[in-house]
Amino acid sequence: MNLTPYIGLLAGLLTSGAAIPQVLQTYRTKHARDLSMWQLVLLNLGMALWLVYGIFLNDLPLILANTFSIACYTGLIAMKLRYAARDRAACDKFD
Amino acid sequence: MNLTPYIGLLAGLLTSGAAIPQVLQTYRTKHARDLSMWQLVLLNLGMALWLVYGIFLNDLPLILANTFSIACYTGLIAMKLRYAARDRAACDKFD
Repeated sequence: MNLTPYIGLLAGLLTSGAAIPQVLQTYRTKHARDLSMWQLVLLNLGMALWLVYGIFLNDLPLILANTFSIACYTGLIAMKLRYAARDRAACDKFD
Repeated sequence: MNLTPYIGLLAGLLTSGAAIPQVLQTYRTKHARDLSMWQLVLLNLGMALWLVYGIFLNDLPLILANTFSIACYTGLIAMKLRYAARDRAACDKFD
C-alpha cells in the first residue's frame, strides 16, 4: 500500500486550511498590522500561478486548494486595508 | 514550447519567497500579535508533510522549497513566542 498520495493530500489540506484561523483571528480582532502586505500579495500572485498550473495540468486538487486559498488571502488583504486606520491609532489597547 | 513547468517553478518561488517579507517585518517591528499561531503551526505541519512527500518522490524543488519555508515559519513561531509579553502590553504604541 502506497501512502505517498495520501501524504500529499493531507499536506495540501493542512497548508490550505492554515489560512482559516488567520482569517478568523483577523476578522475577530479587527487588527492586521503585524501581517506583511508583501507576504499577502506575493502569496496571492504565487497561488494564482499555481491555479493556472493546475488548470493546465487539469489537476482538480490544485485548482480547488488554490481557489480556496486565494479567497482567504484576498479577504486578508481587504481586511488589512480596511483596518489600517485603526491599526495606525497611537494607543492601541490589546483586546 | 511548453510553459507549464516554468509556471509551476515561478509559483513555487513566489509562495515560498512570500515568507521573507513577513519574517523581515516581524523581526524589525518585534510584534507578532496579529499573526495567528494556529496558522503558523498548521503551515509548519503541512510543509513538513510536503517535505516527506518530496523525499518519497525524490523531488528536489519540493524538498528545497519546503525546507526553506519550514525554517521561515519556525522562525516566526519563535518570534511570536518571544514577543508575546511585549504584544500583551496594554498600551501598544505604533512604531
